Amino acid sequence: MTPTPGSPGDVLTLIGAGSATTRSDLARLTGLARSTISQRVDALIESGLVEETENGESTGGRPPRQLRLHTDGHAFAGVDLGATHCRVALMDMSGGVLAECEDPLLVAEGPEVVLAHVDDRLDRLLAEAGRPRTALRAIGMGVPGPVEFATGRPNNPPIMPGWNDYPIPEHFAGCTVLVDNDVNVMALGEQRNAFPGTRHLLFVKIGTGIGCGIVAEGRLHRGAQGSAGDIGHIRVSGHEDAGCRCGNSACLEAVAGGAAVARRLTELGTPAETGADVVALVQAGDTQALRLVREAGRLVGEVLAGLVNFFNPEVIVIGGALSRVHEHLLAGIKETVYRRSLPLATHHLSIVPSRTGINAAALGAGILAIEHYLSPDNVNRLVTT
Amino acid sequence: MTPTPGSPGDVLTLIGAGSATTRSDLARLTGLARSTISQRVDALIESGLVEETENGESTGGRPPRQLRLHTDGHAFAGVDLGATHCRVALMDMSGGVLAECEDPLLVAEGPEVVLAHVDDRLDRLLAEAGRPRTALRAIGMGVPGPVEFATGRPNNPPIMPGWNDYPIPEHFAGCTVLVDNDVNVMALGEQRNAFPGTRHLLFVKIGTGIGCGIVAEGRLHRGAQGSAGDIGHIRVSGHEDAGCRCGNSACLEAVAGGAAVARRLTELGTPAETGADVVALVQAGDTQALRLVREAGRLVGEVLAGLVNFFNPEVIVIGGALSRVHEHLLAGIKETVYRRSLPLATHHLSIVPSRTGINAAALGAGILAIEHYLSPDNVNRLVTT
Repeated sequence: MTPTPGSPGDVLTLIGAGSATTRSDLARLTGLARSTISQRVDALIESGLVEETENGESTGGRPPRQLRLHTDGHAFAGVDLGATHCRVALMDMSGGVLAECEDPLLVAEGPEVVLAHVDDRLDRLLAEAGRPRTALRAIGMGVPGPVEFATGRPNNPPIMPGWNDYPIPEHFAGCTVLVDNDVNVMALGEQRNAFPGTRHLLFVKIGTGIGCGIVAEGRLHRGAQGSAGDIGHIRVSGHEDAGCRCGNSACLEAVAGGAAVARRLTELGTPAETGADVVALVQAGDTQALRLVREAGRLVGEVLAGLVNFFNPEVIVIGGALSRVHEHLLAGIKETVYRRSLPLATHHLSIVPSRTGINAAALGAGILAIEHYLSPDNVNRLVTT
Repeated sequence: MTPTPGSPGDVLTLIGAGSATTRSDLARLTGLARSTISQRVDALIESGLVEETENGESTGGRPPRQLRLHTDGHAFAGVDLGATHCRVALMDMSGGVLAECEDPLLVAEGPEVVLAHVDDRLDRLLAEAGRPRTALRAIGMGVPGPVEFATGRPNNPPIMPGWNDYPIPEHFAGCTVLVDNDVNVMALGEQRNAFPGTRHLLFVKIGTGIGCGIVAEGRLHRGAQGSAGDIGHIRVSGHEDAGCRCGNSACLEAVAGGAAVARRLTELGTPAETGADVVALVQAGDTQALRLVREAGRLVGEVLAGLVNFFNPEVIVIGGALSRVHEHLLAGIKETVYRRSLPLATHHLSIVPSRTGINAAALGAGILAIEHYLSPDNVNRLVTT
């Protein structure tokens, strides 16, 4: 790809970063001809991305007009679809939340029902924020299953019946829609909000299943087919008897996921069905549950120890339902990682519970939409000079 | 970091990519003012990075002068230091090899002896290519151990006695020196030469030890402390009795590295000391050696299966001494990866022997040096406009 320095997208980036607040700044920073600057800025204003205001304080002579992102004119949405909930955040161009809501919703009801619900909530939130539907420029969405990112189609998602290959973006005509795996948008939301200075971060979600979002050099790493981070089916040692829904045995998820821990508790005489039941038991002081959560942490730690050697992250964030009892889970994880990983890779490594919590996925999905919309390539497509 | 569109580095990139061959092209592509273009091009010519020639074919009117990289005026070196060899390639700015040599050399002789040898070979190769020492702009070097990339100092390298924390770049005063782990430069050399269209690639070196170089989005992924890819100490299942030099047990390297396979062969009555001995036995048709190499492949495959789920590469390249009997090694690796990894991640995955072979490290080190030297940031430092 040939770089096109000085494109409208570059100009917008300089304005958005606060590096340039006047046309003179832009001329100085880019070396672009004055006439080219005028052309680019006018096109950005016309497209509604930038606004130019008179500087109120006159200090003798005509004060230069100020350029800034036109945050009021647009809205973006972050949608977090879980197995049993739907969370929507309406955001402005700078990532600020304008309005948000959460409802119980079964993703298994299928795309028509679920996306109609999302549509309804978008309308309500836009009304609440006083913006017309036409202001909505892009939607980011995290779903609980694998997605072909380029097309926004779920790819054989095990807990999303009816969604396989469904073209989600086509449901929202006239609006850019980016669909990604839930744990990817959680990783993005956590990194951008809680660890903006961290370049290499893993977000590990431990719920019914186990998945991982990867931030490398500050960007989401999706891999060749978009399936990167699928760590729930990595083999752990000494559990050959644990069969997994994928057909293999000894998968991490089959021994350390919320459903697996609940099943083991039931076998030991304490009935439990879900990760939430396990969390409730731990919070009630059940020592068996506590022991099993810590052991699940050790198994997750065994897999993470290998990934720490391979990827050398700065921060590992633990999220998902089971992380609500994170002190026990993290104790098991840290114990194994610090014993099994190389000292050089663990010396400055932090393993921490999620700070963004239940908002990570919706915020991350919204950030995905905003960053895509403001990317130089997209701006250059939007703006014709 | 604020982008600086239209910088001298950007202008050089356009010339280097062949996108701009005249000053008019540059004006059109960048939107820069004519006077700015002149200033940037003159500075690049003065610094020796670009040359401008008269177009010989006159078609009526004065033909425009052509701009191109000044490849003749510079030289770059790629140095591959192994445990027992030193390979040096002298390259021009476009990555073409001008001259090369290889000699047996023990890295354990320490930095003074080894770097004096490198110096001597650089002088010989420059003389052979007819370029003065002052033409040498940057040296890339791969060494058989962990390195702090930012400073070029080896970090507790197990098989490089005397090198710990040694400031390698300081030995080559007046020249930019980039030092990296050998398997990182191999990954770069292989990707740039044999798989230029592949964005996500793993290069796995199976020699005495086992390591991995990671190319993500077309760039080397070194991780937070530069230790990424150290997969030799990832745990494999069912080998708790195999102690490793790192202090842990069941490390991949302790059961599947060349030294481990040789030791096992010796225990079984066929004396062998090194990976090279193992290779010789396989090539001589020793069925025991063949069986053990295939089993080593299965163990490497067990670790790679997890990394395929996590990283989702397009290509895995197998290199290093044991890969000289790659048909047996790859059979074991593929068997396990295709059984244990997720279908989505293996569907388009290629697992192949190294195509660049013994040249991968020296070429990759040279490419590291050239890409650094021509990077916009470095060019902007070199050129004062």
